This record gives sequence, structure tokens and C-alpha cells, in this order.
Amino acid sequence: MTDEAPRDRPAGPFPETFASLDHVQQDGLGDMDPERFRAAAHAVVDAMADYLAGVEERAVLPAIEPGTIRQVLPAAAPDDPQPLGTILADVERLVVPNATHWQHPGFLAYFATTASSAGILGEMWTAVLGQNPMLWRTSPIGTELEQVVVGWLRAALGLPATFDGLLTDTASTSTLIAIAAAREAAGLRAAAAGLGAGAGGRTPLVYASTEAHSSIEKACMTLGLGRSALRRVPADGDYALRPDLLAEAIAADRAAGGIPVAIVATIGTTSSTSVDPIAPIAEIAAREGIWLHVDAAYAGAVAIVPPRRGPFEGWERADSIVVNPHKWLFTPLDASLFLSRRMDGVRAAFSLVPEYLRTLDQERPVHDFAEYQPQLGRRMRALKLWMQLRYFGLAGMRRRIDAHCRLAEELAAAVDAEPDFERLAPVPFSTVCLRWRPSALAGREDEPAVRVRLDAANERLMAAVNATGEVFLSHTRLHDRFAIRVAIGNLRTEGRHVERAWELLRREARTLEA
Amino acid sequence: MTDEAPRDRPAGPFPETFASLDHVQQDGLGDMDPERFRAAAHAVVDAMADYLAGVEERAVLPAIEPGTIRQVLPAAAPDDPQPLGTILADVERLVVPNATHWQHPGFLAYFATTASSAGILGEMWTAVLGQNPMLWRTSPIGTELEQVVVGWLRAALGLPATFDGLLTDTASTSTLIAIAAAREAAGLRAAAAGLGAGAGGRTPLVYASTEAHSSIEKACMTLGLGRSALRRVPADGDYALRPDLLAEAIAADRAAGGIPVAIVATIGTTSSTSVDPIAPIAEIAAREGIWLHVDAAYAGAVAIVPPRRGPFEGWERADSIVVNPHKWLFTPLDASLFLSRRMDGVRAAFSLVPEYLRTLDQERPVHDFAEYQPQLGRRMRALKLWMQLRYFGLAGMRRRIDAHCRLAEELAAAVDAEPDFERLAPVPFSTVCLRWRPSALAGREDEPAVRVRLDAANERLMAAVNATGEVFLSHTRLHDRFAIRVAIGNLRTEGRHVERAWELLRREARTLEA
Repeated sequence: MTDEAPRDRPAGPFPETFASLDHVQQDGLGDMDPERFRAAAHAVVDAMADYLAGVEERAVLPAIEPGTIRQVLPAAAPDDPQPLGTILADVERLVVPNATHWQHPGFLAYFATTASSAGILGEMWTAVLGQNPMLWRTSPIGTELEQVVVGWLRAALGLPATFDGLLTDTASTSTLIAIAAAREAAGLRAAAAGLGAGAGGRTPLVYASTEAHSSIEKACMTLGLGRSALRRVPADGDYALRPDLLAEAIAADRAAGGIPVAIVATIGTTSSTSVDPIAPIAEIAAREGIWLHVDAAYAGAVAIVPPRRGPFEGWERADSIVVNPHKWLFTPLDASLFLSRRMDGVRAAFSLVPEYLRTLDQERPVHDFAEYQPQLGRRMRALKLWMQLRYFGLAGMRRRIDAHCRLAEELAAAVDAEPDFERLAPVPFSTVCLRWRPSALAGREDEPAVRVRLDAANERLMAAVNATGEVFLSHTRLHDRFAIRVAIGNLRTEGRHVERAWELLRREARTLEA
Repeated sequence: MTDEAPRDRPAGPFPETFASLDHVQQDGLGDMDPERFRAAAHAVVDAMADYLAGVEERAVLPAIEPGTIRQVLPAAAPDDPQPLGTILADVERLVVPNATHWQHPGFLAYFATTASSAGILGEMWTAVLGQNPMLWRTSPIGTELEQVVVGWLRAALGLPATFDGLLTDTASTSTLIAIAAAREAAGLRAAAAGLGAGAGGRTPLVYASTEAHSSIEKACMTLGLGRSALRRVPADGDYALRPDLLAEAIAADRAAGGIPVAIVATIGTTSSTSVDPIAPIAEIAAREGIWLHVDAAYAGAVAIVPPRRGPFEGWERADSIVVNPHKWLFTPLDASLFLSRRMDGVRAAFSLVPEYLRTLDQERPVHDFAEYQPQLGRRMRALKLWMQLRYFGLAGMRRRIDAHCRLAEELAAAVDAEPDFERLAPVPFSTVCLRWRPSALAGREDEPAVRVRLDAANERLMAAVNATGEVFLSHTRLHDRFAIRVAIGNLRTEGRHVERAWELLRREARTLEA
């Protein structure tokens, strides 16, 4: 039909160093020759393994200022192909040193995301297979493996088989799906008629605690409910939502003509990992007929450890739940698990099947995941989870999560025993919130000048600890106090790393005092 | 701080076959030993290269019925770790044969997504680095490389530097971002106050042609505008939006108190790859003060080929544009490019910075991508694009895209010359819509019985061609006729594959006739 330029072929046995890849040129059509890909990918694997073996020697945070990298890169893409060896060398020269090392065992900031090695092998296969499980048809294995893995995780979390779900990119999307489904379940007909007409002039409302994650507020923005739709119910002294105030808020809003759409309760808030009391909240949700979504994006992993399931009591009564495998289940980003007892409601919020996506020739009904999410296309996220869950086994996952919880408990005890530091929140999982509070200032914390001084001192302390490069801590505010978070959850974190973080905190505090 | 179980170490030099990996056990804490990862990843690379080398020998669609795979898999995750060799062997035994082979050069359905080999190398690095460029801080390289690659693509597409943007997962998300920004730009204050209060009782409206993609309708559902907010403006005989009818619809809606929020024009619709006339539509958008979003998710790739830029005339006047590198720019799923001249408007729709994400110690202002999208977390998508654009060079990308267009033009000519087939739409890019219409029925196409017969015959014909496994075609309806689409866009597709598809269509048609 047409004459194509010949593809270049390898001349013979192919050496595997980067320099020798420099003769790889790509001046025809089509893709790289598979044998050249093989050689290049072997070289990349060696560099990847070296990276993992040596990641601890690096500073967790790269010591660069914003804009530095952009300045050294050309402003336009090259016209001519560049040698593969040069490109791969540039990854090692330019990319790796300027990464924030989420794989570093000293990564104790935010909540960790680790890419386990078994998960990385899964991502490698995922990349080469290029599956798009939007329809069963477009990826039978991607679709069915996702159904299987969702079932595996659901059971491992101790939830009944009435829950089904899907894998999304992030908790933001999972929570958005939940609130969208709640919106339909509340009778708003938002998907069909929009919130203006569907709500009939009344205001749809979403309830969460003052400690709940920003993704809930963002979902309200995106879904057209608006930030103002989010009612922030006060938390108690331990940062847990107060069910009595929740019930009061709902009653007052109903009296004022509002439409309660969803309650989002959190097991493991981002600031302090506090736990909302799910059972009484579920009671309120059931009584009021309001969709209950449980955000367990971080802490949900703990539910696979039966002796630690206390904080999860009652979550089986939720309408939907999010748990992020790419947080504390060590799965490469991205993978968020959305579960619901009401998948028909989710489908009502998102199903839309145009002719060009209609499947014609299957006799049995198929499960097309695109009908349950805002996007059409989607990555195959199940393979890496399937491989990793088998590699560790549930027992292995439990042992690792339990070990992180124990490390946090030990750190909490150490903080409690140290007169110059104080712990700022309970430690139900693997995160310790603390601050430096020299014993000389004990009892004077409420004086305005002392508050300001302690905030500034802790901000400096955290910066000093992070500047060592050995660990990376992040912060929050708790009861309007600057709090340093030590969040344990990286797969590679061992006792010695947490111990070192604690040493550095005390050491740098002494330096600042001096 | 705590005693940990020792990690297992390799006993010595590590063989590389799957069977020999069976002794890999993982009974301690932490991750796989890096040397074991190295050996396993080398084995996976060999299997990956073998897959790419042999993908053409496979049937594009696996010959299985829905539910088959689920039945053979255990209902629960294993408690004990399983040997890595077994897991990797299962990938080859169970996963690969049940994939729809998007990498197959005979994949001519929907729009192709190819994972180029250079892109796969990028995904491998992406997996091991585990970057989350939600904040500059959480991935300096992920953030700045994304800024660079967005600039490279913007320039390559011939768009002015007033456009900036980000990489999202899919065109669904990119279009949702556009309409969310448009909503704010129209003064609805949806992000803050919600669509009920913000719209003041008036109906927000979005305009697109009857041929526009379902993702626009889905974005309206998700954003709380509702399906009813989407005004489907009729297309002309060539499936292109009629600007005169667009202007009429806007005027009528304004008169009725509606609020026009956005116009979505498409360059390369999904059914027929038709082109909406952007210049007159941009004129209307400017006159009316309505946000113009251009959906060029598929065809946008062609804009990197200057001699083929005709259909894009005027798109530089759009407020936002989506082009999907994971479609016709051969980038592994997922990667969608969102561009806008009004990034401040995008930020207004999505920015939300809680304390625990506030960056404290940088003096220069930073660009945090999470402020421009519905999600907080995000994968590093720039690395694979950066590597791939350098590997092919823009000239190489242009040559490949141009070759696909030429193949489609040649197929279109062949269809036109064949009395028993007819072409159902113009071919501005790389997709040919056709149907079998035996010459004996020529001139009788409008008889109801003939219409039904032709629809059924073409549905059977497509099924028969797909059943060969050599190619995979999909369908749509054009002017209410069943249309078979031959969509060229896989990086590996050569002239012989398109020629073979055309042979199979004619051969199977003869069989069905017999």
C-alpha cells in the first residue's frame, strides 16, 4: 500500500552499557527494535536496582532552589532524534538527583508512598501491555483482575461481600465518586438535571470534621456543590468528630431547608491520624438517610491486621469507603481503592455509553469500569497489586504494617519520656505528632508570646532536621500549635531510621537552644 | 528501637530464569533485596522484549468469554508469600494471553494507544522513583520536567507561549478542568458557593456538536451542571458543528435566561474524525465572552506536522485545548495534555492549600500542580514524554504521524474505488469510516428494509473480521448508518497491516454474501 522507510536493525550482538547504546539511531518509522529495547531495558534495570540499593545514601530532599532544573533544559524539543545512551545517562545525571526520594527509608513526611519492588515489576508489565480497562472488551484481564483484586482487598480489610468497587488514581477521585453518588442518592438528579434545577433551590450539604482532608472540600468544589456546602463539624480534644454536634448541625440545616447529602467520616486524619467514631456516626447516617463515606485513605491498611481493627468498628455500615494501596499498602502510585455497598448508585452518577463504545457481540453482561468513574480511559492498576499481594502474602503485609505501628508506639513513649518535647495527639496508627517544648517553658504554653516562640522554634527545628538530608518530616497545626509529624509508612523504614529521626530532633533542638 | 527480623539476602550469584527465582522467599520485613529485584527485573525485561517482538503473532482480541478469568483465580489473597517465580510465570500464563493487545500493529479500533519502547523505559524509571509531583517540594524534578515538557509540546503544536498547562490522566479530566474553569470564568462562583446559589436560579449551559465526545457530557454530569446543560448543536453533512446554529442556540438560550458557560469544539471527533470550524466558532466565543475549549485529544498530534495544520486554523484563540499524548503521540497510558491561556482561571477552580501541604521554607514562589486539577496526588507523567520526545525527535514524530495520514488517504482511495463498499465520511487525519454496500443495493440505501439489512450485514462483517484475530476494528453510527472505523495510529502499524484489514473486509464480505 505504501513504501515505508526501512527500520534500522541491530548489527549484531548488542552490548549493554549506556555508552554503547549511543549508536542507537531511530531514523525510520515504527518503534525501537525489540532487541534494542531489550538491551536498553536491561541497562535501565541495573540502574533501577542500583538506585534502590543506594537510595538511603542520598539526601531525602534534593538541595536545589525552584527553577534550577528548568534553567538547564532546552526550551524546545529537539528536531532530530537523540542517542538513547545520552537520554538514559541524562536520567541518571539530571532526573534522579533532583527527585524527592519517596523510596528513602527516612521519608517520614506527609504519608509515605512506597513503590515495592514487586509492585515495580507489575508496573513494568503494565507499561508494556498498555491495557486500558475502560471496557471489558478493551482489557478482559485488566477488568477481571481488578474485580479479583478488589475482592481480595475487601476481604482482607474484613468487609462483607456486599461491598464492591474499583481502583481509581487517588483518594481525591474516590471521595469525589462517593459524594457524586451520594448526590444522586439524595434525589438531587444532579447528573441529569444539574444542581440548579435538581436541588429545587435548596442547598445540598456535606458534613465532615474540622480535621477532615482537603480532598473533601475539593470534591465539593469540583462537583458544583461549592466549598460552602461543606459543613465542618467541630472535633473533640483528640481531633475526632463529635457525633452530638453532627446530629445538631444536620437538624439545624434541615430546619433551614438544606439537603444533607453526605457525611464523610475519617479513620486516620491527615494532620493527627485521629479517628472519628464511626459507629455513632453510622447510626446518625442511617437514621437520617444520609450517605456515609469513610475516608481511610491512609489508615485503612491497618484493617488488614485483625488485632488492630478497633478504630474501624462500624465502618461496614458505611455506604462507601476509600483506602489507598499507594499509601500504606506499598503499591506504586497511583492506586486508590473505592468500595461501596451501593455500586448501582455509583453507576447512576457516572454511566454514559455512546454508540462507539457499545459492545455488540458478547452474550453475557459485562462489567465496564468506565461506567463507575468520571473518566473514560484508565490504567490497569490491578496487576501490580495482584503481584505484590501474592509476593508479600497477607501475613507479610500484616507483619509490616504492624511493625510500623509498633515503631510509632515506641517513638510516642520516647517523646512522652523526654521533658523538652511533648506529644500533641494520640497515636492510633503509625504517625506521631510532637513538638519541642523546652521544659523551662512547661506550663506557660498558653501565653501568647510563648505560643509564637514555640511555633517559630519548631518551624526552625523541622527545617534543621530536614536539612540534614537523613530524614524528611512535615508539619501541621493542632489546636493552633505548630506540630511536627513523624509519619512511619515507608516499606523500607526500620527502627534505626525512626531512632535517628528522634536523635536528630533532640540534637538540632540543642543546637538551636545554644 | 526495635528488633527486626533479618531480611533475607541472596546466597550468591543469582540465576535469571523464572524457575530459579522460586527460592525467593520474603519472610522478614522491608522490601525485596535489591539484588533479587535486579535478577527478577532482568527476567521481566526479557519477557517484555519477547512480548513486543512477538505481539503481531497474537490475536488482537483474546478469544474468551466474560467471567472466564475470574473463575480460575482464588477468591481470596494468599496468607503466605508466594514464590516470585510462580507469580512471574502466572503473568505470562494468565495475564498476557487475556489482554487486548493494544500494542498489536493490527489494532485499528477506537483510537490507538501505543506504549513506545522509549516511553516504557520512562515508565520503568517512573515506577522506581515513585514521584508525586503534587507540590514542587514533593518532586522538584517531576514538577519542572512537566513544565518543560508542556512547553515543548505547546511549541511543537504551533501554539503561542501564552498557553501553559499540565499533564492529566485522560481527556475526560482535561475537559472537566476546562469546563470547571469556564464555570468560574462565567462568574458562577461554583467553587465557592455551589451551582445552586452561584447561578442565581439561571441555567448554566455548555455547547458542543451532536458528534462531540461523551466525555463532555460526563464532565457536565460530574460538575453538577447535568446532562441537560449540554446543548448539542447540529452538525453539517460532514459531521462538523454548524456555527450559524451555534450562534442561534446561544442567542435563544440567553433570551430564555440561560448562562452560556463553555463551547467545546472538536478537531477530530471520535466517530468520524470530523473537524469543527474553529475560526468562526472562536469568533462567536469571543463576541459572546464564552470560554472556548478545543477537544483535539486524538487529532491534536497532527498539529506537530506543519503542512497538515489546516484543520487547526484558529485554535490558538481557544481558552483551553486538550491533546492526548497517550493517543497518537505514542506515550504509555496515561498522559493527557491540558493547555490554557487562562491558567489563573484554572487555579481559581481548583486551588486549595491546607496547612499540612503548605511549603514553608522556599523563598521563591513555586508552581504546585495540585492547584490546577481535581486531584491532590498525581503521577510523574513528564519523564516518559521527555525521554520519548528526545528519542524520536520532533522530526521522527512528524514522519510517523504523516505516514499514518498517508496510509488512511490510500485506504480511503481504495474504498472509493471499490463498488461494493462506500466511504461514510471525509478523512482529514488517519481514520476511515466505511461500510460494505453491495453494488446491487446502490441507490436503494434509503429504503427502510435496505437500511436494516446493511446495518446487520456490516455488524456481522466487522465481527467476522475481528474474529480472524489479525486486526481489530470498531464501529460507530454515522447519519444513522452502521459504520466500520479503521483508525490508524498504532506506532507499529505499517502499510501491510492496513492492506490486510482491507483484504479481510473484502474477503469476509464475499463469504457473508455466499
